[in-house]
Amino acid sequence: MTYCLAICVDKGLVFASDSRTNAGVDYVTTYRKMHFFQPASDRTFVVLSAGSLATTQAINNHLRRDLEYPPKDGINLATVRYLFEAAEYIGQVSQSVQQRYAAALAAAGFSGRVSLILGGQIRGQAPEILLIYPQGNYISASEETPYLQIGESKYGKPNLDRLLAADLPLEVVARIALTSLDATSRSNVTVGTPFEVSLLPRDALAISHHVRVGGGSSYLMDLRQAWNEGLRAALDRLPPFDWEQPEG
Amino acid sequence: MTYCLAICVDKGLVFASDSRTNAGVDYVTTYRKMHFFQPASDRTFVVLSAGSLATTQAINNHLRRDLEYPPKDGINLATVRYLFEAAEYIGQVSQSVQQRYAAALAAAGFSGRVSLILGGQIRGQAPEILLIYPQGNYISASEETPYLQIGESKYGKPNLDRLLAADLPLEVVARIALTSLDATSRSNVTVGTPFEVSLLPRDALAISHHVRVGGGSSYLMDLRQAWNEGLRAALDRLPPFDWEQPEG
Repeated sequence: MTYCLAICVDKGLVFASDSRTNAGVDYVTTYRKMHFFQPASDRTFVVLSAGSLATTQAINNHLRRDLEYPPKDGINLATVRYLFEAAEYIGQVSQSVQQRYAAALAAAGFSGRVSLILGGQIRGQAPEILLIYPQGNYISASEETPYLQIGESKYGKPNLDRLLAADLPLEVVARIALTSLDATSRSNVTVGTPFEVSLLPRDALAISHHVRVGGGSSYLMDLRQAWNEGLRAALDRLPPFDWEQPEG
Repeated sequence: MTYCLAICVDKGLVFASDSRTNAGVDYVTTYRKMHFFQPASDRTFVVLSAGSLATTQAINNHLRRDLEYPPKDGINLATVRYLFEAAEYIGQVSQSVQQRYAAALAAAGFSGRVSLILGGQIRGQAPEILLIYPQGNYISASEETPYLQIGESKYGKPNLDRLLAADLPLEVVARIALTSLDATSRSNVTVGTPFEVSLLPRDALAISHHVRVGGGSSYLMDLRQAWNEGLRAALDRLPPFDWEQPEG
């Protein structure tokens, strides 16, 4: 399983992902699920992936090859004019990779499906995040729901719903993303560290910070401890029931 | 959908449930999912239900009828000697109700399945909570996982994992349960108020408090506001990244 997350606020985009990959329970490995593309100085893209590792790697390989050897129609990440065109192109690559192996995988009882989040900015346009379904179609985030999730999304959702606001600094948004990842990995063993977080400030057209925190890193341990203490403090502030003696 | 929760701590048991029942999206109604049984002065049981409303009501009817007209084998909630015997008996009633309608329901594309949580205490024994599967078998909670959930359990799990401790007062545990319910109903519209919470103190053999809070109740609004403020305060306490200017 996997948990990846992209958040869009006024100041730019934040991406977060875990790194646990498993085939069954006895082949658990670590792979990055956050992939960076800066095919020209006027654009930066980040792709997050959940699903088949083989399909994910093939998509990445095809996206990079298409930059060096542009396909006949000339479409690649350096030439798309809008972020939605990048989503359509990546969705098409995803579908063609999946279809190549679909019959063989289905015969063996496997699935080659992947869900992707594409985020980024092309100069002169707004930063944007889009979710690309395994079928190749896509949706964008909205003002009311300024984030997109793929993989094991439920455990980490309440923190996002309660804490995200459009005017928060990117660093604060990155910390919210880490609490969301940490809540998920605590409740589901198939989501695990290292966690990756990256920040794409509006109009910077380049990732400003990329953090990779392992399970034993002092930053993650400090964050966990501070969050636990904060939650316990929040618990102490909850109103007593009417039958409880008011304290003091 | 539904979200029900039972928690076992040193001081006793806490039960919590939402009240939203729906058949599709256009027949949304409110039904209690928390059912109380005190068939003798030496015992109290609480049953929480998730799944088919018809099956749930039939199970309740059979449990109550069996108290007035004991079945041939003499087993009912007044005569079981252990909580696990109550679970076996209720599991059997659940199975027989489901089987009666299984063919007709399957032909129409419906399911009559229910998951149940049974909690309570029989004098001289420890308070206990058990999850009764739709198939009639059951599991009990453990010291490491002192709670059981049925229905839409994921959104509300992180609060439980981070905050529950065996030595907490029942009222604090009840407030944790309410934050868990509220997180769930915020992320999933099919889980909704009123929320019910009840407290069964160890060795009291009777429910000490039963609270029903509607969405607009001042208690729930105060709790939500305090929890949101507490989470934001917790967010402010998280450690800065190494590139951020230390404040002050």
